Amino acid sequence: MTVNVLFAARAEKWEDYEDPLNAALEAAGIEADLRTEFSPEVVDYIVYAPNSDVQDFTPYTRCKAVLNLWAGVENVVGNDTLTQPLCRMVDDEGLTQGMVEWVVGHTLRMHLGMDLHIHGQDGKWRSYSPPVAQERPVTILGLGALGRACGQALAGLGFPVTGWSRTQKQIDGIRCLSGDAGLAEALQGAQIVVLLLPHTPETENILNGETLAMLPRGAMILNPGRGTLIDDSALLAALEEGHIGHAVLDTFRKEPLPVMHPYWAHEKVTVTPHIASTTRPDTAARVIAENIRRGEAGEPFLHVVDRDAGY
Amino acid sequence: MTVNVLFAARAEKWEDYEDPLNAALEAAGIEADLRTEFSPEVVDYIVYAPNSDVQDFTPYTRCKAVLNLWAGVENVVGNDTLTQPLCRMVDDEGLTQGMVEWVVGHTLRMHLGMDLHIHGQDGKWRSYSPPVAQERPVTILGLGALGRACGQALAGLGFPVTGWSRTQKQIDGIRCLSGDAGLAEALQGAQIVVLLLPHTPETENILNGETLAMLPRGAMILNPGRGTLIDDSALLAALEEGHIGHAVLDTFRKEPLPVMHPYWAHEKVTVTPHIASTTRPDTAARVIAENIRRGEAGEPFLHVVDRDAGY
Repeated sequence: MTVNVLFAARAEKWEDYEDPLNAALEAAGIEADLRTEFSPEVVDYIVYAPNSDVQDFTPYTRCKAVLNLWAGVENVVGNDTLTQPLCRMVDDEGLTQGMVEWVVGHTLRMHLGMDLHIHGQDGKWRSYSPPVAQERPVTILGLGALGRACGQALAGLGFPVTGWSRTQKQIDGIRCLSGDAGLAEALQGAQIVVLLLPHTPETENILNGETLAMLPRGAMILNPGRGTLIDDSALLAALEEGHIGHAVLDTFRKEPLPVMHPYWAHEKVTVTPHIASTTRPDTAARVIAENIRRGEAGEPFLHVVDRDAGY
Repeated sequence: MTVNVLFAARAEKWEDYEDPLNAALEAAGIEADLRTEFSPEVVDYIVYAPNSDVQDFTPYTRCKAVLNLWAGVENVVGNDTLTQPLCRMVDDEGLTQGMVEWVVGHTLRMHLGMDLHIHGQDGKWRSYSPPVAQERPVTILGLGALGRACGQALAGLGFPVTGWSRTQKQIDGIRCLSGDAGLAEALQGAQIVVLLLPHTPETENILNGETLAMLPRGAMILNPGRGTLIDDSALLAALEEGHIGHAVLDTFRKEPLPVMHPYWAHEKVTVTPHIASTTRPDTAARVIAENIRRGEAGEPFLHVVDRDAGY
């Protein structure tokens, strides 16, 4: 029996995803009809981007699951019309790989003080040698699939890695902490902090005046997680005061980051345009096809969102 | 019996090394007298930097080994007065670690196109996404301790790594090639090339007009190895023509690189001041103490230079 799959995302995504999704569905042995429009009542699955036109799920009475194309679900998880299982994108091959590369790359950039040379091509022989990674403690806030992968990659290069999460975890190569006391301990020794928490009411502004003050002077911050994790005014004040050495920010409360935002002009801030982790059509399509296969076989879906926890 | 160890390097190095060397010798159980001056005929070992005042080894009649503080030996290996075993510095903890960090850091910088954002903090949201590492082949020329460690670190992050060396090697995670045909194959598919060969008559100008032309258009070059590995005029021509995308150079024929050298002003060249791998006193002192321990116990020295091969 043909499975009707609605692709509900912006038009330009359809070009990227049509072929990979059809290929992945066929490879998974699913006879599917993939389209950008259907009568709502015949739709079996929705492949979904939270910025699509579909915001009312009520008419999709037959839909078995909403399969998010993004890792972030904060713009859909509170939608009361959504009663079906909602699955996050966990694209280990593409999305996690990209995140690991961005985090390891910018951690090494900060650690090595690369900008001194990138900006200093003026004939001066500046022979600054950084400490080795073993003497540069890194803390990762958030130990989901992304935080875990980044932490293990950094530990593999020799950095002492501490990870913090809401609930206590145990991960090879990472010193795991949790709770309020754990957060203070995780921040106090960190020379580089990487934010990889989901956006929830509890994580909003987790880096604020109080927690920034726990970091040692000169600490550097990487935020490839969510823009809402940082109290922007507090960060700007800490940068101005010299307490924070540099911030590399990939996510923001408003994107694209407005041209007049002070982050753009700040010499101690690097803005990157939400590129740390981008869902890649080939690998993401395989994750979606696998969830449709599971739904049709009556098996549990992968990466179902816990609606109470918010992620 | 007390072992007399002459420290023959520039004065400022004595400050860095006196305490770590004494500590390492004591930890190795060696009763040593470490000084910067001795009557040559009573010296048992020379801890040596090739730019020291000691250039005639003839009077050091009792000396059992010359223990180089540097990885590079090209400025001492041809010294005909040196008849004792010459040992290179292979400081896995410090020197190799530093090299891995520099190579992985600049490889990721090139791979991710970081400079677009580091230089582009002007309010434009440039959402370029690079391919994942799996689609960015890296070739390392030279598979000694440094090349091997860098290759395995890059492979661990997902890059397909090819390594080339004079003699055929076999290393987990690295596709190993050798010989002239192997060099062509190693270069033809490489988007990033890392030079980690020693300086020998055979490796001089190994990257020249002919071999640069074997690289695909836009390839990027990292040279933390030796300045003599590159034909500078050929590289500048290839950068000018657009065939080579960028070069990150840490070593040069003359150091510090002269202020008027065209590399400084070239927008497609990053000069770093020979910092990729610096010998670190704590860890290097342990390597030297271990070799003195071996000498005193009649065991073979570590990292003895093959005088015919030149490294």
